[in-house]
Amino acid sequence: MDESTKTAVIRRLASAAGHIKGIERMVQDDVYCIDIIKQIQAVQAALNKVSTIMLDNHLRTCVTTAIQGSNPAERERMLEEVVSVFAMVEKR
Amino acid sequence: MDESTKTAVIRRLASAAGHIKGIERMVQDDVYCIDIIKQIQAVQAALNKVSTIMLDNHLRTCVTTAIQGSNPAERERMLEEVVSVFAMVEKR
Amino acid sequence: MDESTKTAVIRRLASAAGHIKGIERMVQDDVYCIDIIKQIQAVQAALNKVSTIMLDNHLRTCVTTAIQGSNPAERERMLEEVVSVFAMVEKR
Amino acid sequence: MDESTKTAVIRRLASAAGHIKGIERMVQDDVYCIDIIKQIQAVQAALNKVSTIMLDNHLRTCVTTAIQGSNPAERERMLEEVVSVFAMVEKR
Repeated sequence: MDESTKTAVIRRLASAAGHIKGIERMVQDDVYCIDIIKQIQAVQAALNKVSTIMLDNHLRTCVTTAIQGSNPAERERMLEEVVSVFAMVEKR
Repeated sequence: MDESTKTAVIRRLASAAGHIKGIERMVQDDVYCIDIIKQIQAVQAALNKVSTIMLDNHLRTCVTTAIQGSNPAERERMLEEVVSVFAMVEKR
Repeated sequence: MDESTKTAVIRRLASAAGHIKGIERMVQDDVYCIDIIKQIQAVQAALNKVSTIMLDNHLRTCVTTAIQGSNPAERERMLEEVVSVFAMVEKR
Repeated sequence: MDESTKTAVIRRLASAAGHIKGIERMVQDDVYCIDIIKQIQAVQAALNKVSTIMLDNHLRTCVTTAIQGSNPAERERMLEEVVSVFAMVEKR
């Protein structure tokens, strides 16, 4: 992953962790349940965005290298892995 | 898509459509709401499986061809498209 | 479920089943994989809407009756069931 | 929310935040993209569990009070809110 993407991903993760610390305080302060659920959904959306960036990077690096490479077993493994991640996200 | 995959996908879709017709009858017959929701979830899972098969096929054909090809713009377009499908599934 | 809601739900389900029959033809006609995946997503969104209508109806009828009723075990059972449906939808 | 539920929720949130800090280190250390995506999925599953606990609590407190109460507008507002949360989770 290039440095600027890495920095951006780490910043997004730090922001998500900070958001969760804020939700802890909301729970402590007895904020209305539904408002807390909405904040958790916002964190989920932020984490989805990180996963998308990671997958984008993965396709452009490892998967591209494997598909352009001369090892059919490695290419097969890579494609199966991407498909299994897709299936995992669908089920979540 | 090879013929056996195509046949399998069409069979899965026909099965999902038949399942939905069955759910229509359940609604008509005043079956318990929660049981109907569970049947709808089962159809959703079956449709997820079809999407996964389609994506698997897409990666092995169009995406592989584009990545092995000599057109960087086409390769870029393909990768962006796969990432956007991933993001769409995450949000659903 | 009142008759107008029932009619609306059955119409939505029939529309989803018809949509799937259209997707079968798309597969048969070798339409581009990504466009097929997008159509499947559209059907899933339509089915989500049906689940939401069913849950809405369930809360206004069975759950309301149980919560206003004098049977704590039945009330407990109803609430657990709604929570389990929520958890199931989250995981999908 | 009773104190034991509140404590459990805060502990789960703190654990999720800690998990994310660990993922930041994984990104920093160039861990394989797919393994990072899997860890993000694990955090999301943990956050889903928190949302489920919050909804469970909400149904047993605010929603039950509104349904047993004498204010139809408040009862209506509560039910619509639960349905909208369900729809939001379906779409995510």
